[in-house]
Amino acid sequence: MTNRITLCLAGFGNAAQAFCRLLLQQQQYLYKMHQVKVDVTAIAGRSKGALFDPVGIDLSRALEEVAHHGMFSSNNPQLASLTTLGSIQRSHAQVLVELSTLSIENGQPAIQHIEEALCQGMHVITANKGPIAWDFRRLKELADQSGKWLLHETVVMDGAPVFNLVKETLPGCSVTSFKGILNSTTNFILEEMETGMAYEDAVREAQRRGFAEADPSLDVEGWDAAAKTSALLNVLMNGNVTPPEILREGIMKISMEDVKAAQKKNCKIKLLCEGWLENGQPRGRVLPSLVEKNDLFSTIDATSSILSVTTDLMGEICMVERHPEIEQTAYGIYSDLLTLIRKTSK
Amino acid sequence: MTNRITLCLAGFGNAAQAFCRLLLQQQQYLYKMHQVKVDVTAIAGRSKGALFDPVGIDLSRALEEVAHHGMFSSNNPQLASLTTLGSIQRSHAQVLVELSTLSIENGQPAIQHIEEALCQGMHVITANKGPIAWDFRRLKELADQSGKWLLHETVVMDGAPVFNLVKETLPGCSVTSFKGILNSTTNFILEEMETGMAYEDAVREAQRRGFAEADPSLDVEGWDAAAKTSALLNVLMNGNVTPPEILREGIMKISMEDVKAAQKKNCKIKLLCEGWLENGQPRGRVLPSLVEKNDLFSTIDATSSILSVTTDLMGEICMVERHPEIEQTAYGIYSDLLTLIRKTSK
Repeated sequence: MTNRITLCLAGFGNAAQAFCRLLLQQQQYLYKMHQVKVDVTAIAGRSKGALFDPVGIDLSRALEEVAHHGMFSSNNPQLASLTTLGSIQRSHAQVLVELSTLSIENGQPAIQHIEEALCQGMHVITANKGPIAWDFRRLKELADQSGKWLLHETVVMDGAPVFNLVKETLPGCSVTSFKGILNSTTNFILEEMETGMAYEDAVREAQRRGFAEADPSLDVEGWDAAAKTSALLNVLMNGNVTPPEILREGIMKISMEDVKAAQKKNCKIKLLCEGWLENGQPRGRVLPSLVEKNDLFSTIDATSSILSVTTDLMGEICMVERHPEIEQTAYGIYSDLLTLIRKTSK
Repeated sequence: MTNRITLCLAGFGNAAQAFCRLLLQQQQYLYKMHQVKVDVTAIAGRSKGALFDPVGIDLSRALEEVAHHGMFSSNNPQLASLTTLGSIQRSHAQVLVELSTLSIENGQPAIQHIEEALCQGMHVITANKGPIAWDFRRLKELADQSGKWLLHETVVMDGAPVFNLVKETLPGCSVTSFKGILNSTTNFILEEMETGMAYEDAVREAQRRGFAEADPSLDVEGWDAAAKTSALLNVLMNGNVTPPEILREGIMKISMEDVKAAQKKNCKIKLLCEGWLENGQPRGRVLPSLVEKNDLFSTIDATSSILSVTTDLMGEICMVERHPEIEQTAYGIYSDLLTLIRKTSK
């Protein structure tokens, strides 16, 4: 790795934009602490167009154009007529940062982007959970064979370092089970219902506040939580599973009566993600579950999240992320970039 | 570092014994995964006597003798007439594992043990919080100058990786503040008082269960919590403070009326450890504080503990250790040993 690192961004949504703002803010730090200049040389957005410049894209301009017009300007001298795959192939960047929109059916097109990047000799940082939930083992092997890194800290709990917690700070431990609250939309909806709001109104409130998509089915049917459960099984417990293999029940059938019955038992209903070993095989489920009010899990409010990991040698360790914003997602990607710098400069 | 690592243990109390049991259990793993044979070549206990053998001490025998007689047997062929300092000087071990009894007044004799070990060219793993709370900066500089490692994960929250969380998994982040419940004895006593038990009875119950010492003053006066706060300030926030510089109030003055008044406000009283920056300088305090019942901190029960760290780039991350046993302390020391193996084999 030279003292210059070049990035190709696949996707330019909210997380990608926040990451670019953070990069601009951290340029001095990166140069001073790591003697590294980071340049984004390609950006391929689905709806915003593509930018390409081997010398380095003017990120301030790109951010401003998207903020004002929702897409890159036709006057932008770095505008390019490239698909995402074309950008990866043509960019000659050292690192693909995969930020494209998740397709929950099969993890595509992100998987294809990552395959192509590894094929081109690039390292990969993905904030897209699809590839890790659907195809981690194969992609990791591909990366290992190419001597490249596949980093994915942002995939579960934004920048909260749940994967690195196990990998870097619990040496010699095997994860035997985990339990988490990992989907903020359903957590918010269930919390609103506790205050007496009907399910439909709570969904609309989540949409109004920007927590839920126009089509909330990925969240309320538990697909997002299942994808995260699958990713955790694959990475932390050496699994080779996909989201449809996760036992899954969403929150659509939770009625006000259910919520009130839980309250009578001094409990709350939370959408729990769980992983465990069954005859040595990693298994997972996503299920609305009763949690006692004096339990740690019941205090996880709104967009906060928690992951509790049980290991053979160290017992139970929990990590809680409180009230994250998009900046925490940006940090997750940035922390992978710093990890890459540390790993490749040795 | 060769494929053999030799350890000198200063202290042979509960944590040291649990660590030796874990070492025996992990021998195969260490050899298979890291091609390393770990031998303890010296043990210096304060009341149990000393063992010394360059070939390696028979740990099973040592553990059995102490379990049955409270000290090493006079028949033990590895018995030696050595002080702790003498053991460190004579052992020629590669690593000192500092496990001696904490003196809260000044961090001695552990500081002297560590100085001597570094002077002898040894790496140091300390589970004793004294040196980190009292003299971290100087000892770290001493270690850096000698090109040796000074590791201390066990000092706060047993084996829960609070120091490595920041060091290894939050790259580029600066810690701006922290808040924790870090002393289990006081946490247990306050919890018993919530059930209506008088302070004195709660202290006796803690002693009966083995959470509190015969002289509980280190815990109930907040000294243990202050030492941990000082250690966190020194390591995570680049401080250079000592326990007496921590604003400190224990729980001796907490009355049943205080506990009931808190309950009326839907709160609990918890002994909080806090660190923050004041005009750029790290400051700390230990104070019984009101915590709302629906807050994460109020669910930290009995011997569980929590540390919440706020950083510039990643917001607030909390780590919770639930219901640790002595095995978790042993794991903390073992994880430092694995870190040492990883760092020195590169």
